[in-house]
Amino acid sequence: MGASLLPDLATQILIPVCGVIGIAFALFQWVLVSSVKMSAGGGRDAASKNGNTDYLIEEEEGVNDHSVVAKCAEIQNAISEGSTSFLFTMYKYVGIFMVAFAVLIFVFLGSVDGFSTSHQVCTYDATKMCKPALATAAFSTISFLLGAVTSVVSGFLGMKIATYANARTTLEARKGVGKAFIVAFRSGAVMGFLLAANGLVVLYITINLFKLYYGDDWGGLFEAITGYGLGGSSMALFGRVGGGIYTKAADVGADLVGKVERNIPEDDPRNPAVIADNVGDNVGDIAGMGSDLFGSYAESSCAALVVASISSFGINHEFTAMLYPLIISAVGILVCLITTLFATDFFEIKAVKEIEPALKKQLVISTVLMTVGIAVVSWVALPASFTIFNFGTQKDVTNWQLFLCVAVGLWAGLIIGFVTEYYTSNAYSPVQDVADSCRTGAATNVIFGLALGYKSVIIPIFAIAISIFVSFSFAAMYGIAVAALGMLSTIATAALVSLALFGAFVSRASITTVDVLTPKVFIGLIVGAMLPYWFSAMTMKSVGSAALKMVEEVRRQFNTIPGLMEGTAKPDYATCVKISTDASIKEMIPPGALVMLTPLIVGIFFGVETLSGVLAGSLVSGVQIAISASNTGGAWDNAKKYIEAGASDHARSLGPKGSDPHKAAVIGDTIGDPLKDTSGPSLNILIKLMAVESLVFAPFFATHGGLLFKI
Amino acid sequence: MGASLLPDLATQILIPVCGVIGIAFALFQWVLVSSVKMSAGGGRDAASKNGNTDYLIEEEEGVNDHSVVAKCAEIQNAISEGSTSFLFTMYKYVGIFMVAFAVLIFVFLGSVDGFSTSHQVCTYDATKMCKPALATAAFSTISFLLGAVTSVVSGFLGMKIATYANARTTLEARKGVGKAFIVAFRSGAVMGFLLAANGLVVLYITINLFKLYYGDDWGGLFEAITGYGLGGSSMALFGRVGGGIYTKAADVGADLVGKVERNIPEDDPRNPAVIADNVGDNVGDIAGMGSDLFGSYAESSCAALVVASISSFGINHEFTAMLYPLIISAVGILVCLITTLFATDFFEIKAVKEIEPALKKQLVISTVLMTVGIAVVSWVALPASFTIFNFGTQKDVTNWQLFLCVAVGLWAGLIIGFVTEYYTSNAYSPVQDVADSCRTGAATNVIFGLALGYKSVIIPIFAIAISIFVSFSFAAMYGIAVAALGMLSTIATAALVSLALFGAFVSRASITTVDVLTPKVFIGLIVGAMLPYWFSAMTMKSVGSAALKMVEEVRRQFNTIPGLMEGTAKPDYATCVKISTDASIKEMIPPGALVMLTPLIVGIFFGVETLSGVLAGSLVSGVQIAISASNTGGAWDNAKKYIEAGASDHARSLGPKGSDPHKAAVIGDTIGDPLKDTSGPSLNILIKLMAVESLVFAPFFATHGGLLFKI
Repeated sequence: MGASLLPDLATQILIPVCGVIGIAFALFQWVLVSSVKMSAGGGRDAASKNGNTDYLIEEEEGVNDHSVVAKCAEIQNAISEGSTSFLFTMYKYVGIFMVAFAVLIFVFLGSVDGFSTSHQVCTYDATKMCKPALATAAFSTISFLLGAVTSVVSGFLGMKIATYANARTTLEARKGVGKAFIVAFRSGAVMGFLLAANGLVVLYITINLFKLYYGDDWGGLFEAITGYGLGGSSMALFGRVGGGIYTKAADVGADLVGKVERNIPEDDPRNPAVIADNVGDNVGDIAGMGSDLFGSYAESSCAALVVASISSFGINHEFTAMLYPLIISAVGILVCLITTLFATDFFEIKAVKEIEPALKKQLVISTVLMTVGIAVVSWVALPASFTIFNFGTQKDVTNWQLFLCVAVGLWAGLIIGFVTEYYTSNAYSPVQDVADSCRTGAATNVIFGLALGYKSVIIPIFAIAISIFVSFSFAAMYGIAVAALGMLSTIATAALVSLALFGAFVSRASITTVDVLTPKVFIGLIVGAMLPYWFSAMTMKSVGSAALKMVEEVRRQFNTIPGLMEGTAKPDYATCVKISTDASIKEMIPPGALVMLTPLIVGIFFGVETLSGVLAGSLVSGVQIAISASNTGGAWDNAKKYIEAGASDHARSLGPKGSDPHKAAVIGDTIGDPLKDTSGPSLNILIKLMAVESLVFAPFFATHGGLLFKI
Repeated sequence: MGASLLPDLATQILIPVCGVIGIAFALFQWVLVSSVKMSAGGGRDAASKNGNTDYLIEEEEGVNDHSVVAKCAEIQNAISEGSTSFLFTMYKYVGIFMVAFAVLIFVFLGSVDGFSTSHQVCTYDATKMCKPALATAAFSTISFLLGAVTSVVSGFLGMKIATYANARTTLEARKGVGKAFIVAFRSGAVMGFLLAANGLVVLYITINLFKLYYGDDWGGLFEAITGYGLGGSSMALFGRVGGGIYTKAADVGADLVGKVERNIPEDDPRNPAVIADNVGDNVGDIAGMGSDLFGSYAESSCAALVVASISSFGINHEFTAMLYPLIISAVGILVCLITTLFATDFFEIKAVKEIEPALKKQLVISTVLMTVGIAVVSWVALPASFTIFNFGTQKDVTNWQLFLCVAVGLWAGLIIGFVTEYYTSNAYSPVQDVADSCRTGAATNVIFGLALGYKSVIIPIFAIAISIFVSFSFAAMYGIAVAALGMLSTIATAALVSLALFGAFVSRASITTVDVLTPKVFIGLIVGAMLPYWFSAMTMKSVGSAALKMVEEVRRQFNTIPGLMEGTAKPDYATCVKISTDASIKEMIPPGALVMLTPLIVGIFFGVETLSGVLAGSLVSGVQIAISASNTGGAWDNAKKYIEAGASDHARSLGPKGSDPHKAAVIGDTIGDPLKDTSGPSLNILIKLMAVESLVFAPFFATHGGLLFKI
């Protein structure tokens, strides 16, 4: 045992400073993006063509620079207005849910000790008194709302940045791929840094404010903080599901009529669903992902903090060691800042084919730098050795062991990233094989695509299993929580976060074993493994039904508006936007309810053992479907692009656009849309959200739950 | 405690008598099927048309009866020869594997006690001496080989019966649907009764022969008997996988060129792959299913017997109570015999639309009769109360509680059967919705079909979960084992059988808890949940690759053989048969190895706790994929048939054959082929086979396993 090298005061300075640096860097990148003017005069000039051989935009002849910029600005406005309007509609409905759920949290957690205002015996030390359950109820409610609002803001900011940058990227694309890449990369950096820094700063401030009340009661403090994770990820769920249904209904609907029936290119302005499709990209893929990233960050930090609070840090009141997860995030911001400079300032992209390797290089650089960063943080912020409490037993851990836990998560994340790329990039044989199978039609394309998705699960699962084994062996559930944090640095994989939350839930619910051989646990396990299927059925059916409506509307417009195909008449974009909006608002409720109500129903009626089974089952089953669905969809998307690009003899033998193999590839791509952009990402949230919700309500379930078995 | 009402002698008579009755009834049905002559003169006559309005065969004009019969006989011969030749080729390869694996069983189990020939202390009673481990090794090896051979015979007989009956059904179809139905139903009965009776009699004789050596050492006897289950189900795996790849490669290949490109009907003799396709139906769907059914029967009986051997029956040497699982099977044969008469003698089918309700009625009648049968058996064959040993604890069980265990399995099976029918029959809205989605193309058809499959998992999983809970609560793992036996009476669902085997494995490996919170178990759980994906990827890719080769060959023949499309030249069927044969033999090895080697590798290197996790993970994940894959495939198949039949205004609005929605439906049907006939059924075997293999090797793993963790 011993104190950390880093004094508490330094920690109190380091974390907010890194947060502020992140926010400042984001603003700086925004200023750079803004330098692309959305007014005439910024067009293509001869000098800038040097060295930039790839052009992303083919300009129409006879269209002058002024009208190109004006047209871009007009489309940008339409997309931005549509996105803002949809998000506000969605937030209105979700807001009602949030308030109702906040009341539920307060009432349920307050009832644990009969709304008593008197102090209670501490769980970690029976000789001490801790804050009342009612206080935890109140603070959990506050942190839940705070998490929800931060998540909304993260998603909304992301969307605003994306719609601000999209037209600018388009205009820069006329100067070559290098210029477009930098604008796109910078705007991504704005969102990334804002999100990470924002999440860190809000969490840091909340902890410090709550600490004014809780004092040395670390257990109570961090239990209350878990509400932050729940708020963040429940908003992420609705953002992903609602946005996901929106974007894919529009996308599938637009593609089915536009590309398949009318043979017009993707994103052609003659397509009535094109604005809805682009709005969807912003509200689903960007706002949804923004909320999701924030949610993952909040959940993994909360899981690590709550487990840390019952380790010796919590008992010995070691502030710096306690905030180890936040210090890692703070250092992560610095590492990413350096890495970003490699992409925007040290190298230059000159051709489309350089983009993928450049991004891969970024990933490797950040992983290497981050490994050094974690080593330093583990050395200075942790005592040389400390104790972890693990389901009733104790375990001694050294600081370098905890470093290895974070590092194994980080590097496993890198491996998973590479495997994902290998299976979904058309630079490698798996996607090329899928493209080749289009030769015999859509059926073989789908069979090969599904098989690819299933196969792509193997290595990631082994990587996750090894991470779990190593990190658990070194530092039990705390090891897994920090490994999840490490993995989050490169990709956001749900398995470790969910397992860490599951571990925290089990600790908080005072369970010492989750025995598969008891029927209570086993039925939970098998039903839990079924939930991702139920959830996917709902979301895919929703996308399918909404897409059918969209198809009918697009067909109706093509058939009834004279001059639409010729480009002389404008389509009615608004009706398509309305179809997507109505469908997504209506259809996000059943899957949302499934995820939010399952832990409550199981906990209340069947109790904590069955709920443990449900969480473990949904975790081990959901992570597989999530990975395979995302990769299958990604592979189909890139198989289609491979044929369209025609960059090799093989690819050209399958093309050109409109050929039979290309048509088969478009069918695969369309099927993949709901898999990769609705079901897949939502499933990641499902498994984490059910775990964090169980964690928040654990004391309630442990006290009042299991009604059916009590009868 | 107390003895059973039924004397042991009565049991010794009842079981073989029921077996012999089953075999006799099968032979009697065969005689009836044989009465349809494969020579001229049995053609359509005016009188038989009365009351039979539906004709299944449209006879070509100008073709006389003699040449129809001759043509049928010719095709039957080609299919029968092809099937026999393929099965012999497959058995040759599988035979080598069987011998090698038999050696492995003997060596591994013999090594448990260092090949010592001296007696050892009994596991259930430390004061008694039991037979040496070497004897269990020898007898396990014998029963493994016996199970394998019985499985091969079951599959082979099934194929022979099917090829014998297919031409006869075709000829009878000319007299109307009722006549064809009876021939088809009777030939199904031949196979069903032969399989069930054969399995029962062989098992019964084996037990009695082994008992001559084992005497009162019930534990040793039934541990040795589990080899029978392993032999049966490992043959079932190869039969299902090999046959499944064979049939679907031919089917997909034939359809892609014939139906999609050349627009000729299914099973058109001009299609070069048509004989391979029909051979495939016999070797995959029939021989494979035959082995599979036998395997399920053997596994569930062995699981129940081995658990029973450690209950008070085993200790008190109550022979009748011990053989309760076999008595249930024996009574099941009588119940099915009565039920069969309803289909063939008491009612008559007059139209195609009456077939489905008639089969459903059969299912209900047999379930009701079987419930009565189980009640009687439970009353006479069990003591009024007895003790079950459950992972170190004891549990008192009454005979009516055990009756409820079997009944809950039986009725849950009926519910699952109805749910499956609801989701895959085109008489109900789910399949009609899928058909309707073909209006907007293949992509929406696939999205809706996948969503349907996912959704169809929900109720079956709840039914399984309730069965598990009820049967476990009443009689621990023995309850689950007999519930599995009950469920087997109506459908063969793998979950309960696998769980019962898992329970038996855990008992035999002397594990008392399988705690998800230990990393050894959790990594097993997540890797286990991944295995069905790995396995599916292999089998689907195999079907896809083989189908591609088939497509190329069929295209080549259409392009190079003059007069093939016109029907004036004969295609080269043999080359297509060879492509399917080579592909299936080659491609069945990797998935077979995955299933057979996983328990060995995990057990040897990681030990019994991790293996428990793997079994639980693959069970809860695999059962979901198996159900959803089968139902998705079934729904696509029937959506296509719904459009083709055009039996309602809605269906006609989607047709006729060759319309765009019909083409989209054919694509779905083709994708569904490997899902419903290769991956889905094989996955059921995967989860059971890994469990029974672990059970057989349990003493070896418990003694010598877990090498990695020992270092």
